[in-house]
Amino acid sequence: MAARPQTETPVSDYEPLTPDTLPARLGGLATMADAVGGAPETWRVAEVGDGNLNLVFIVEGSSGSVIVKQALPYVRLVGDSWPLPLKRAWFEYNALIRQDAVDPGVVPAVLHFDRDQALIVMERLHPHIILRGQTMAGRRVAGLGQVMGRFCARTAFRCSDLAMNPATKKADVALFTGNVELCDITENLVFTDPYFDAPMNRHTTPQLDGVVADLRADAALKVEAQHLKRAFTARAETLCHGDLHAGSIMVTDDKVRVIDPEFAFYGPMGFDIGMLVGNYLMAHQAMPAHISDAGACAAYQDWLLDVIRETWDAFCEEFRRLWSTERTGILYPATLYEDQGHVAASDRARDDLLAEIFTDLLGFAGVEMHRRILGLAHVAEFDSIEDPDIRAPLEARSLRLGRDLVLSRRNITTMDDVLDMARARTAAEGDEA
Amino acid sequence: MAARPQTETPVSDYEPLTPDTLPARLGGLATMADAVGGAPETWRVAEVGDGNLNLVFIVEGSSGSVIVKQALPYVRLVGDSWPLPLKRAWFEYNALIRQDAVDPGVVPAVLHFDRDQALIVMERLHPHIILRGQTMAGRRVAGLGQVMGRFCARTAFRCSDLAMNPATKKADVALFTGNVELCDITENLVFTDPYFDAPMNRHTTPQLDGVVADLRADAALKVEAQHLKRAFTARAETLCHGDLHAGSIMVTDDKVRVIDPEFAFYGPMGFDIGMLVGNYLMAHQAMPAHISDAGACAAYQDWLLDVIRETWDAFCEEFRRLWSTERTGILYPATLYEDQGHVAASDRARDDLLAEIFTDLLGFAGVEMHRRILGLAHVAEFDSIEDPDIRAPLEARSLRLGRDLVLSRRNITTMDDVLDMARARTAAEGDEA
Repeated sequence: MAARPQTETPVSDYEPLTPDTLPARLGGLATMADAVGGAPETWRVAEVGDGNLNLVFIVEGSSGSVIVKQALPYVRLVGDSWPLPLKRAWFEYNALIRQDAVDPGVVPAVLHFDRDQALIVMERLHPHIILRGQTMAGRRVAGLGQVMGRFCARTAFRCSDLAMNPATKKADVALFTGNVELCDITENLVFTDPYFDAPMNRHTTPQLDGVVADLRADAALKVEAQHLKRAFTARAETLCHGDLHAGSIMVTDDKVRVIDPEFAFYGPMGFDIGMLVGNYLMAHQAMPAHISDAGACAAYQDWLLDVIRETWDAFCEEFRRLWSTERTGILYPATLYEDQGHVAASDRARDDLLAEIFTDLLGFAGVEMHRRILGLAHVAEFDSIEDPDIRAPLEARSLRLGRDLVLSRRNITTMDDVLDMARARTAAEGDEA
Repeated sequence: MAARPQTETPVSDYEPLTPDTLPARLGGLATMADAVGGAPETWRVAEVGDGNLNLVFIVEGSSGSVIVKQALPYVRLVGDSWPLPLKRAWFEYNALIRQDAVDPGVVPAVLHFDRDQALIVMERLHPHIILRGQTMAGRRVAGLGQVMGRFCARTAFRCSDLAMNPATKKADVALFTGNVELCDITENLVFTDPYFDAPMNRHTTPQLDGVVADLRADAALKVEAQHLKRAFTARAETLCHGDLHAGSIMVTDDKVRVIDPEFAFYGPMGFDIGMLVGNYLMAHQAMPAHISDAGACAAYQDWLLDVIRETWDAFCEEFRRLWSTERTGILYPATLYEDQGHVAASDRARDDLLAEIFTDLLGFAGVEMHRRILGLAHVAEFDSIEDPDIRAPLEARSLRLGRDLVLSRRNITTMDDVLDMARARTAAEGDEA
């Protein structure tokens, strides 16, 4: 019997779906039947969950297809020894409808939500694939930086006290504080475990042992990592996706969508975009192992760096636009600035805030790069490199770049500086610390 | 009929107490009857509420006395045109029991709480008077800095992720986000209204018009005030009292207690102590109007500055002690520092955090000094000075000192520097900006 977390009221009729039971159990949902088409008994159902946590079904019928995502009461990757509450589906649902409201069309449309069954019926993204698969294959995605930068800016701005009614924002903060267990995963696996010899860690050994020892002996780094954790736990600025890596983005060659916000929480405005940039930087470092032609590899790496720049540029552009047009919340009110003829003060406040977001972004990018190489959950960009002697130097460069970002983040002022740092790490022969 | 806020479920049997109805209505409470003694019909009841919001009764009997505090569904000072929810008693109650748990004996003991009636029966502090009355009379309070510094440190540390279980802390954050309306008062009256010509503002006019115009034209100041507001709304670091001024502290010549945490919210660790220091600095500036003998006045002003220094020293000392002995939360865990032999890293993290709290303290002190002279709610230290030509120069000095604290807060490193700034402002003849 699966362990159940003590904090959750047991739901007596919760029952995981199977491909066999799904048509009968969900066939009565009008929205779903309309989207799929045909008699439920004719639906084709495949379980395709390749993530760590949930059941995911594709349901196809005569007129279309949908995704059914159902939480399991434990971590799928590990088994029932690691319970994880079903309520994460509730937070995912709430995040999805808010993200869709503030940036329509980026996340999958929700067709149905069943809280007791911890399941969401949603739009199937087709023929999209996970961004990581696209980049590891060396394929570009037109508009990637634009869409993601705008998405991060719109969620950051519109779910904050810059735009929301304060009572509604505070109620949302209260709602998402319930996502304790998934925040706990981030609090431990991202900000703490990588910086000491925690039981669930793994890294490429022995090749990385030296650089790992250096990082774990670096007092300044360990202090900053926990300062960032404090920001994660206490700065309820906006609704964060919470897990915005290259496995949470689905793409075609020219379309970009965002999925899987079950780690959603109220946190710093720079958190999502920081994790994303950290993942792009790792992809950039790993690329020589995935594209054998040196020229093609370098060109693709340049494209990845362009995506980072475009993401941040799009974030800033959209944030500035929203600042001018949708600053309806209690922070930096126009009554205090524009209405007094003090437009320059408003611009200054906005630029201060963007600078702070940028600093945070760099810090979160850096710790994300560390935890994906030293912690429990790795990224395929590195893990798929079979030869540890090829993998380790690329990982080491990412570790060092991550450290540089964390420690120097208050002194780095432009994204171009970051891209230069990434290029310098790639070019470095000695890989000295 | 009193207006009722729309966000609150009407409580059909809520009924304000009167001195006449109180004995019959509360006489059946065993805890209260035991504390007061004698038959309820013999109790002596006096309504003594001199604050802005609530009914406050002293109930005396044959063996003792208690305080009964009951919320009104509107702002008492203004009347039923300004509704204010009864649920603030719920937040006050929750804050009182938490404050008593983390620093026993400082807040009044709660004998009974009735959520529907929005009333708290609590220990009567006797013969304590409001701190403001003590200081305006030029009387000292032995141990004031020690008690208040320790109280601020204990609440800051023990109600945060430094000490609490993360699920409990997140649940408390969720609980206190419900205190929307009282946070709204602070958000508007402290951080915004003073910096423009808001309808409810008042200041000594015309004497202060020039300096007020200067402050309201100061772009940097207006930007920083809103940065501080953002910290107030988003940084859910710890349980703040929320209104820790000289009217929320009751004293004898050698005893110190804290009352009235109905503005309680999760906020920055430097908020309470910052407001407190701001109030001490105003008392310091106002003192020449309250003690006519120049030597006695100067000596008492020195004592007030000593209290500020002692408050901050006690805060730091207690915070460091708790860091060493009670760091049981998820932030800066010993597993990452002490257990790895990295004590210096732990000390560095702690000192970073104290430095950040100090910077915040100065900012909150500064805006508090502005809002008490320019906003709706003033302090008796200034308001009781009848001659505006005497009052205005003292207020102007406080306004300028407040601005200096806000704008220079990132460059001020010791409390002695702050005290020097306060002395310099007192001594300044020209009071130039």
